[in-house]
Parts: sequence; structure tokens; C-alpha cells
Amino acid sequence: MDIITLSHGSGGKATNKLINDIFFKYFENEYLNQKNDSTILPKLNDKIAISTDSFVINPIFFKGGDIGKLSVCGTINDISMSGAIPLYISVGFIIEEGLSFNELERVVKSMAETAKKANVKIVTGDTKVVERGSCDKLYINTTGIGIKKDTTPYLGGDTVKDGDKIIISGTLGDHGISIMNERENLNFSSNIKSDCCLLNELISDILSVSNNIKVLRDPTRGGIATTLNEISEHSKISMEINEIDLPIKNEVKSVCDILGLDPLYVANEGKVVVIVDKEEANKVLNIMKENPVAKNSAIIGEAINDGKNKVYLKTLIGGKRIVNMPEGELLVRIC
Amino acid sequence: MDIITLSHGSGGKATNKLINDIFFKYFENEYLNQKNDSTILPKLNDKIAISTDSFVINPIFFKGGDIGKLSVCGTINDISMSGAIPLYISVGFIIEEGLSFNELERVVKSMAETAKKANVKIVTGDTKVVERGSCDKLYINTTGIGIKKDTTPYLGGDTVKDGDKIIISGTLGDHGISIMNERENLNFSSNIKSDCCLLNELISDILSVSNNIKVLRDPTRGGIATTLNEISEHSKISMEINEIDLPIKNEVKSVCDILGLDPLYVANEGKVVVIVDKEEANKVLNIMKENPVAKNSAIIGEAINDGKNKVYLKTLIGGKRIVNMPEGELLVRIC
Repeated sequence: MDIITLSHGSGGKATNKLINDIFFKYFENEYLNQKNDSTILPKLNDKIAISTDSFVINPIFFKGGDIGKLSVCGTINDISMSGAIPLYISVGFIIEEGLSFNELERVVKSMAETAKKANVKIVTGDTKVVERGSCDKLYINTTGIGIKKDTTPYLGGDTVKDGDKIIISGTLGDHGISIMNERENLNFSSNIKSDCCLLNELISDILSVSNNIKVLRDPTRGGIATTLNEISEHSKISMEINEIDLPIKNEVKSVCDILGLDPLYVANEGKVVVIVDKEEANKVLNIMKENPVAKNSAIIGEAINDGKNKVYLKTLIGGKRIVNMPEGELLVRIC
Repeated sequence: MDIITLSHGSGGKATNKLINDIFFKYFENEYLNQKNDSTILPKLNDKIAISTDSFVINPIFFKGGDIGKLSVCGTINDISMSGAIPLYISVGFIIEEGLSFNELERVVKSMAETAKKANVKIVTGDTKVVERGSCDKLYINTTGIGIKKDTTPYLGGDTVKDGDKIIISGTLGDHGISIMNERENLNFSSNIKSDCCLLNELISDILSVSNNIKVLRDPTRGGIATTLNEISEHSKISMEINEIDLPIKNEVKSVCDILGLDPLYVANEGKVVVIVDKEEANKVLNIMKENPVAKNSAIIGEAINDGKNKVYLKTLIGGKRIVNMPEGELLVRIC
């Protein structure tokens, strides 16, 4: 029995075997062991953060990660972005008939390792199998819940004010370019890999040194251009970033040049945009740089109240252009 | 713009338009309006129930419901089965390029109406679009959270004892047979329709009249045969059901006969199996019958401690056979 068949999704013996041999083997914990239609979790004495994401990335294994690691990091990071502490996640698998047990097991193992690293428990799950051609290998939904302490400040675009600094936690575009490189067999560079990683510890560090964090957002699909435009729309304030300060790997820059892509619009899966009061920007930058996932952090710009609600890029040659919300397709299935 | 294109999944302008024009239009509430990576919910002062389910049903519209109604009912019912009160759900859409806006809007409207009926709020969501041929129209994941009051008894197979009565809340197999009938264009009967419905009020009624409910389970994928086998495995006790007492519509029975299907293994989407102390079985049955979704409720058997841990069917002609966990494919993509 080395591939997934439709009978693994039937709810009968084969489903039970799949659940026991793969899911319980790696995810096992006291909550999952309840084995009921729903899982009962202990009381939480704080506000609750909830986030959901479906992952349809192609290919499912890539340099720097796989769909399993990505699906756990993605939801844990989204919970962290609200200043909450991620605790539990649910997992829903949609599997294409014919996927090998080996591949599924590698993904599940990767999910379990990532969750363990973040001290998060996978507490409930669901498995569907669809006929060949009705999905592409494997799609995963994860939904996370966490707790938001009353002592953690409110984070949101509406708190941003003129002069607040914009920090990015490292190089831009690594994830999207890495996926393109592998999927399209571009063979541009063997040094390009996804930045897919957990950000919960970094966020915890950031919040521990400053009470004046305004916004935390991970610039995933649509890249930093999209994230800044969303913050700008929410804050009713403009953002100005400096091309010279943007951390971008040379390899990524080259691939973007060749393909005609703008790294500002390319997805990241292990980066955070921090907007912070200017007085505390350096303190926050310093603590970020101490974290291995954020050693290339940089202050890249600031909020400016010009009444126009736009995102600007000051270019290397001294010009200034508007960075719009992206239109059209961009890169598909990169998360 | 009458079909979904890849640009609707890009995270840019088209995604925002889709979210505003369809999702916010129908789901709008104070939590969803936070528009952040994760949503902050108020403190809950009780234990938390969580459940997740992905829906890949084909066709997405069927007599008695659609994938939207099903995805909301399914998760709300799973939460209810633990005796918890459902409060919030998350929604993850995976949409195939080319799906019409009309169809998506019908599904979203149906989700909103169903959630409203159950007094449940859709608090966070995610949308992915995949290329034609990489999914089949539309897959939906819903994850629900609810509260489990300390005053609600623990429900679980391990509380079942000899003599406890087994009640089913209505006719068996309606959902699975209805989906087969439509998908395969069998045209067997126009009277067959899915039983897809919300069970939260029924469960609340049941728990209000008895403190001796042992198990609540909805016999979905794999039918009542699978559910009873799972309970039996968990309880380490046998179950005996009587063929003469099983409520099955004549039309469903006929289709099952023709197709060689056993209605015990066919999915239901609006039924609950109740296991209750024998002294309170009639009281529970009576309150169930007063609920429109359970008017055909019947006591169908009981738990028997024969040390064998099996499910038995006493047949019409007086025989007794073992009802095993299902093997093989059964019906695919019925939820």
C-alpha cells in the first residue's frame, strides 16, 4: 500500500489506517487522542486570535521547505502578527488519489517538527481524497488559535502616525523566486531558497523591547508592495521606502531582472514588516538582528502624512515613484 | 468580470475586489471587519471545542443544499456533537479558475444564511485560486470553535454501558443517495433529497432534558455502520440494532437495492446518533420528535456487554449479522 487511494478518504478501515499510521504517528498529543468529531481544549483566560490559510503551493517540496512546513509556519506567523501567542492548530488535508505514502509522510513529519518547534499542538484534523486530476497532489488548510494578552498593545494600521519607521526583517522575494526557479526549471541559481520559517519567537522579542509597535504584517502573497498598500489604506497615511535600503539578494535581483519581476511584489514566507515609533526603531532593529531569522533586518522607510494615502519608492537615482497595489496574475500557487 | 481568474488569487487588486464584492457583502460582521492577518475574538470563559472539515462534494449544488450550506452545517454539527455551543467559524476557499461569479455568490450567500440561522459568525477567511484542472470548481474548509459549559456532561464512547439505548434522529442514507442520484444522472426519484441541515438546536434540546446522554455523533461519511463501529471500539462494548426499527425512506431503499448499496454505510448530513441511559430514552426520543429535523427519530437498538466489541444487526427474518467497518471506496466526494 504505497499510494493514496480513494478508499483512504471513505471514512472506513483504510481511512482509519491512514490516520493511525501517519497522522497519529507524528501529531500525537492528548487533545488529538480524544478522537471525537470535535476536540475539547482547556479554558483560555485571554482574548483569542484565530487565523486560517489554505496552501496549494506547487511544487510541494522546494528548497528551504515543503507544503507541510509552510502550512504550519504560515498560520503560526499570522497568529503572531496580531501579537498573540499561537497555541493550537487544526489541519485539513485534500489529497489527490495516487500521491505516494512516502511523500505524504514527509509532509506530515515536517508539519509535526515545525509545530513542535513553535510549541503548538495539532489538535484536530480532517482528510479528504479526490480522484486523480481533481487536485494537484496535496492541498492543506491550517487554522490556528492563540491567546492575545491584555498587556500586549493593539496592533493595526490605524495607529500609524507621521514619522513612524518601517523595518523589514530581511531580504525580499526569496520565497517567490525560489518557487519559480524550481517549478519552471529555470536553474538560475542553486543559492536561491525559500525563507519559509517560524516568526513567533522574533515577534515575541520585538514586543518585549517596545510598547510602541504599531503594525506587524508578514508580506506574503503580493509581496511588501501589497502589504504596505494595505497598511496605508488602513492607516490613511502614506509610506515612503528607499530603494537603497531594501535588502535583496543579488541572485534574487538578477532573476527578477531577467524575468521582468519586481521584488517588491514577490512573496516572502519568513519576513515581517514592523512599523514602530521612530524613537524606538533602532532598539527594535537591534533586537531583531540578534535573531537568526532576521539578521538582515533594515529600516527601509517611514510613514509620511502628505494627505495622499500612497506608497512611494525613492529610487537609487533619486526619483520617486508610486508603488501601486498589484494588478493581474503575479505568481500563482506560491503558497 | 463574470468568472474567477488567477488574478483573483494573487493577493492584489482583483483579490481585494472579490473579498469586498462577495465575501464581505454576505459575511460582514465586527470581527471580519478587523481585516488583519488574524482576528481577535473576545475572551471565552469556558472550555473550547474546535473542529475542522474540508468539503469537496461533487456536484456543488444538489437537492436539499449546496457546498456552502454543507460546509457550515458540517462544522457546526461537529462542534454541537461534543455538547458545545458553536460560536465562530473560519472559511478557506480553494477555487478553480473559471468558476462563475454567480455560482460562487450563491454558495457564499448560502453559507451566510446558514451561519446566521445558527447564530454563528464567520470571523476570518482565506481564498486561493488554482489553474483549471487543479481542483474541481470549489473546495471549502471550515473550522469552528465553540464553548463547552462545565455544566454539560462529558460525552464519549467510554461512558456507554450495557443496556443504553441507541436513537437515530431520522431516516438513513438520504444525503449519499441524493448525491449519487444527481451526480450520476440516475434519475431514480425526484423525491430523494439531501438531509443536510443544522443540528445545533436539536442537540441543545436533547441535552436540556437528560443528564444521561452518553454519546452524540453525526453519522456522515461511512454512514451509521461506521459511527457505531467507532463508538463500539471506543466503548469496548457491543451494539445491537434492529433492522425493523431503522427509519429508511422507500425511495432510498429502492435505490440502494438497485445499486447494491447498504443504507447503513451511506452518508447522512443532518442526523445524529444518540446513546442514552435506557431510563431516559423515551423522554429524549419525545423531545427529539418535536424538532422538525428529527420527527422520524427512532430507538433502533442498544448496547450489549457480550465482551466482543462488535456491531450486530438483527435482521427482519430473525437472523443476526455482524456489521463491520466498511472497506474499499464506498461513495466518494459526498461531503
